[in-house]
Amino acid sequence: MSLIEKLNWRYATKKFDTAKKLSPEQLDTLLTAIQLAPSSFGLQSYKVLVVEDPAIRAQLRDAAYGQSQLTDASQVIIFASETVIDSALVNKYVDRIAEVRHMERVHLGAYEDTMVGTVNRLAEDQKMTWSNKQAYIALGVLLTAAADLGIDACPMEGFQAGKFDEILGLKALGLTTTVIAPVGFRAEDDTYSHLAKVRRPKSELFIHI
Amino acid sequence: MSLIEKLNWRYATKKFDTAKKLSPEQLDTLLTAIQLAPSSFGLQSYKVLVVEDPAIRAQLRDAAYGQSQLTDASQVIIFASETVIDSALVNKYVDRIAEVRHMERVHLGAYEDTMVGTVNRLAEDQKMTWSNKQAYIALGVLLTAAADLGIDACPMEGFQAGKFDEILGLKALGLTTTVIAPVGFRAEDDTYSHLAKVRRPKSELFIHI
Repeated sequence: MSLIEKLNWRYATKKFDTAKKLSPEQLDTLLTAIQLAPSSFGLQSYKVLVVEDPAIRAQLRDAAYGQSQLTDASQVIIFASETVIDSALVNKYVDRIAEVRHMERVHLGAYEDTMVGTVNRLAEDQKMTWSNKQAYIALGVLLTAAADLGIDACPMEGFQAGKFDEILGLKALGLTTTVIAPVGFRAEDDTYSHLAKVRRPKSELFIHI
Repeated sequence: MSLIEKLNWRYATKKFDTAKKLSPEQLDTLLTAIQLAPSSFGLQSYKVLVVEDPAIRAQLRDAAYGQSQLTDASQVIIFASETVIDSALVNKYVDRIAEVRHMERVHLGAYEDTMVGTVNRLAEDQKMTWSNKQAYIALGVLLTAAADLGIDACPMEGFQAGKFDEILGLKALGLTTTVIAPVGFRAEDDTYSHLAKVRRPKSELFIHI
């Protein structure tokens, strides 16, 4: 199948097959795709939780209006933005650049200043919005990579972020829940899998200039 | 190459080869991937501009701090969010669902009410944030699809959105620029293409529960 055929095959899975789990290799491939997702400056101002614990997942389901994907998928992937986006986060990233690229840190000073300047110009709510958007790029990469591998997923915004943060102990980690995506395999009787995909026609979606 | 190898191959292209253009088939595949990108409720509250016109692109470059990708890439893909997100947008989407799925509209009433309720509960700035995030999912899908096809891209937030809106006449269309991605092929001498990719190590990026 081409990637387009795979993107047509995917859908927001409502009912997962509880008996089918991702292999360790499949999960690792999805996580690697997330790791490789681009972000503004490459800063990756989020962490990603991979939740398998059944008791925790039962609590998350309660905080997600009872939606079965939380307990029935193979894993629940949770994108959680850093709550403190400051020069320290940038400094740490620049340390990492110097390490990976075998560069002397002094040569990264101008780039570091640009990033710190950008971050410091943003108000707190703007920082969160900016950071959340980066996590959504990673979500898009994850969903595409999952489709490529024939793995189902369900991107979800319908949950109580505050309760998720509490259940997962995120506040203490300086994180807050942004968006989630249970991953696994569709149940054979998920009626949603047979529905025709509805998208804006190209003539309405695209403007050529 | 596996998708992971392709995601390692991709990078935010700084210098495009001005002589290399996407074939019509390659461009259509990228646009189809964007069209198939998931969004909250499937609402796709954005449009996507595909800019080729050299004079317009010169103006856009000026409004993007002179960055050469704006004029040198094969096309500039611009995600532009709808500025009015209301029940009319939802109604139109439900019309489309009824048409594609050959359903009687009356059976979609509950779903429509849920969507209208969600939209109406959001303040104007929350609507924009929500809509922008959906466009970022599509950006993630685009970047992954481009990598899959061996096409280069450069996701960019460094531009003056207000000026872009003016140059592209977006206000009259009820749109505003969200994020952009020039697409094309890397120049052989783009030094950025040889830099090692810097990402958070898995041990720092992922939390397993």
